Amino acid sequence: MNSFNPTLPNWLSRCAERVPDHLAVRCETLNWTFAELDQQASYLALQLATFGAGERSRVALVAANGPVYVACVHALTRLGAVLVPLNTRLTLEELRWQVQDVQATFLLYDERYTGLANAIMQDTPRLRCIKLLVQASNVLAIASDERNQRLRSYEELSISAAALRMVIDLDAPQVIMYTSGTTGHPKGVIITYGMQWWNAISSALNLGHRADDCWLACLPLFHIGGLSILMRSVIYGISVIVQERFDAVAVNRAICEDGVTIVSAVAVMLQRMLGALDKGRAGYPSTLRCVLLGGGPAPRTLLEECAWRNIPVAQTYGLTESCSQAATLSPWDALRKPGSAGQPLLPVQLRIVCDGRPAAPGEHGVIFLKGPTITPGYVDRPVETAQALRDGWLCTGDIGYLDADGYLYVLDRRADLIISGGENIYPAEIENVLLSHPDVEEAGVCGLSDPQWGQIPIAFIQARIGSIIDADSLLAYASQLLARYKLPRAIHFVDQLPRNAAGKLLRRELPRLLQ
Amino acid sequence: MNSFNPTLPNWLSRCAERVPDHLAVRCETLNWTFAELDQQASYLALQLATFGAGERSRVALVAANGPVYVACVHALTRLGAVLVPLNTRLTLEELRWQVQDVQATFLLYDERYTGLANAIMQDTPRLRCIKLLVQASNVLAIASDERNQRLRSYEELSISAAALRMVIDLDAPQVIMYTSGTTGHPKGVIITYGMQWWNAISSALNLGHRADDCWLACLPLFHIGGLSILMRSVIYGISVIVQERFDAVAVNRAICEDGVTIVSAVAVMLQRMLGALDKGRAGYPSTLRCVLLGGGPAPRTLLEECAWRNIPVAQTYGLTESCSQAATLSPWDALRKPGSAGQPLLPVQLRIVCDGRPAAPGEHGVIFLKGPTITPGYVDRPVETAQALRDGWLCTGDIGYLDADGYLYVLDRRADLIISGGENIYPAEIENVLLSHPDVEEAGVCGLSDPQWGQIPIAFIQARIGSIIDADSLLAYASQLLARYKLPRAIHFVDQLPRNAAGKLLRRELPRLLQ
Repeated sequence: MNSFNPTLPNWLSRCAERVPDHLAVRCETLNWTFAELDQQASYLALQLATFGAGERSRVALVAANGPVYVACVHALTRLGAVLVPLNTRLTLEELRWQVQDVQATFLLYDERYTGLANAIMQDTPRLRCIKLLVQASNVLAIASDERNQRLRSYEELSISAAALRMVIDLDAPQVIMYTSGTTGHPKGVIITYGMQWWNAISSALNLGHRADDCWLACLPLFHIGGLSILMRSVIYGISVIVQERFDAVAVNRAICEDGVTIVSAVAVMLQRMLGALDKGRAGYPSTLRCVLLGGGPAPRTLLEECAWRNIPVAQTYGLTESCSQAATLSPWDALRKPGSAGQPLLPVQLRIVCDGRPAAPGEHGVIFLKGPTITPGYVDRPVETAQALRDGWLCTGDIGYLDADGYLYVLDRRADLIISGGENIYPAEIENVLLSHPDVEEAGVCGLSDPQWGQIPIAFIQARIGSIIDADSLLAYASQLLARYKLPRAIHFVDQLPRNAAGKLLRRELPRLLQ
Repeated sequence: MNSFNPTLPNWLSRCAERVPDHLAVRCETLNWTFAELDQQASYLALQLATFGAGERSRVALVAANGPVYVACVHALTRLGAVLVPLNTRLTLEELRWQVQDVQATFLLYDERYTGLANAIMQDTPRLRCIKLLVQASNVLAIASDERNQRLRSYEELSISAAALRMVIDLDAPQVIMYTSGTTGHPKGVIITYGMQWWNAISSALNLGHRADDCWLACLPLFHIGGLSILMRSVIYGISVIVQERFDAVAVNRAICEDGVTIVSAVAVMLQRMLGALDKGRAGYPSTLRCVLLGGGPAPRTLLEECAWRNIPVAQTYGLTESCSQAATLSPWDALRKPGSAGQPLLPVQLRIVCDGRPAAPGEHGVIFLKGPTITPGYVDRPVETAQALRDGWLCTGDIGYLDADGYLYVLDRRADLIISGGENIYPAEIENVLLSHPDVEEAGVCGLSDPQWGQIPIAFIQARIGSIIDADSLLAYASQLLARYKLPRAIHFVDQLPRNAAGKLLRRELPRLLQ
């Protein structure tokens, strides 16, 4: 045995053995203990196995945050299948492309996304589509070609429970999660069990670990920030409350009434949570021990308000490729180092590189990361993997610096990346869509500060000579191809876009055109 | 990069970066913050490097629990050298044998053990001996042939600080710790950094982790139960209080006045701690969140008394080969599963084997362990390693069973092992000494229950025909060759020892001879 690449006992099963009656997950009125969640995972795995899902199957999932999602994540582990979470905010075109690119053989969906799933499967004939329902607190899997929609007993399921994988190989891929990265072309990030394990461990070493913790997941489970909460729950043996969507009032209620101790959020959410607090209530009960705040630098005013209200905030810097947190500022450092994302988590090495050499303290440069929470690469994309990862070091493309104490300050996410309400928007992707319009000669997209969303995307267009395109018709065109949150909030027509000597678009200079 | 056999940043250095001013270690009146301990480790490493210590040097250490010990452990990590901790309770003969067996090239010692170190080095001429002193809160290394005993500055030290290893390879050996194991012949257990890492992590997942924890080390640092506390301190970034020897009053004072939250102890210590509690004080302040109780099964009465006094006890089963804890009963399970050592820690797999097959729940058998906290083997002993480890599974030789819920009950440590006040005593080792006396024909040693020590060793002797040996002279003979705690408390002369058909001594039947 290689004692450093160990095969671990299945995390959820160990929870079911150690704390069978402890609350594992609450989704609205449904509560599963670890023993029950363990049973659900096995039961759903057996059902999926009868449809042919198994080792290394790539299984796309389009579902709302809820029990179906949670059971599915753990069921796929027992099959050794790989989860491909679909972002429900994307357009049909975008989703169809991802499902085909990843060569998914299964598409799982819940009732809410029946229509979307049907649309995706239309021109992907070899995709096996399976609807997941909750019936009498059990998750039921129904193939789209199956008429008999009834709950089958364990005994009826033709695959033996002994066939399920009850160990976890840290080296194995758990998830393929699409992200556009610097190039603007979506790529599937491989997320292994080891990345989840090391991330959970290093988060616990940083934020502490208590057996009675309860983590609130109100971020989408199709993003790494949401999904990693589910993994921490079974690695730590703690409760998680899953909310279907972000609702400030519901979040506040869970914190004040249901004993939530940790909540993951982005700045725009936290702002709304504070706005929705009852008048006369300065902050939260002391049971809330951490607001883990990701998704880009938070406004200074927000951090100051939290300090004033005595709300413990841990700012974090992370990305899909680092399985969420890569660096986190402990709550007790929040006031000492405002605006910093803290120090890298214990197993993570972080370097700032400037002109090919290590940057001095305070000097700006590109952030590089290395360690066991960093992805081994992009699925089926050896060239992009080799570009992004050299000698284990991931070039994030993000710009930042370290202060003299080694605290990270992130200046710009991937130079041109726009983060709007916690969602990543890649200018190149929007530009590509705009450029596909016959009347567009050149296009440039950048982010504009926005008090509510952090940033919003705006576009600059150089029209083709003689064309009569206007902003509305171009937006209408783009809205067929882009998710709503990616649509430029304004389109400006200009004579010329700023470019450098080599003709490279200088996106950072775009805002000057507004003057 | 293999992302699962990672090279981690040096643990102590990361603490010095993250929490430089946090108390790292307190030894009586000396307090070192993490920044100071970090500096001590580098400073001592540089001094040792000037004497030639470096990568893979095997460095024996004979010292009392104290600042010298702590600095030395971390300094050797920076050199990539391997620590060989010497048990100060052993005889000169035993220590000499170990130092030669391990082929140590350095012997470090503190002032208290100057005489012992001089005696050890007498017939080991190639051993470089270095005395370690604390002078003005700094640890000073003085070679035995060096006259100029003064503190040298960093600048004076000829080795550059850049030569120190500031990363930790989890695969590398940290310690070689001698244990006699089932055979009674001492063997050096290889303890890697990875074993320490996984042990610390899984202990934190089980017992929780809080940034303000303070762990009391009153167990000898030359045993794994003590040493692993030092490693947890730098992996977690928490304070450790090191006491030179176990003193119930001092332990109680540290718990009640110095904010100790966790203390590692064996049953006989805990019993004395309770006995030394002030009258009128039922238990300990609520800051004490865990007494980690190892060293063999604890008496039921002691556990009941702790429950009554509301003292949280976590019973644990561990051995040197598993880098301390392998299974631990959480305090909240203590009353539900009295006498159990709990469930295996998360990355540890545990099997009970009976007649070569997995035992049923409740069925007694030999305990096997597998996982990243288990030793890769015994140093320079391929045959013993191959016997003890098969396919990664360590045969502990200990007897136990799992109940229907998967909780471990340890019946007998290694069948014949005697645990007296937390020290392992191997009957075969004592028998070998007794048998070396010319008047002894046969010898059998077993443990007898003792309210104070847990167990004490007693011996049964079949004298040679015609000899006139008596118990006192035999004890006097044995005391020259055996550590005091190993000496039989009683010697009984018998006509015949119980043996099985194959002539194998049946040590378990020895106590019947007393009747």
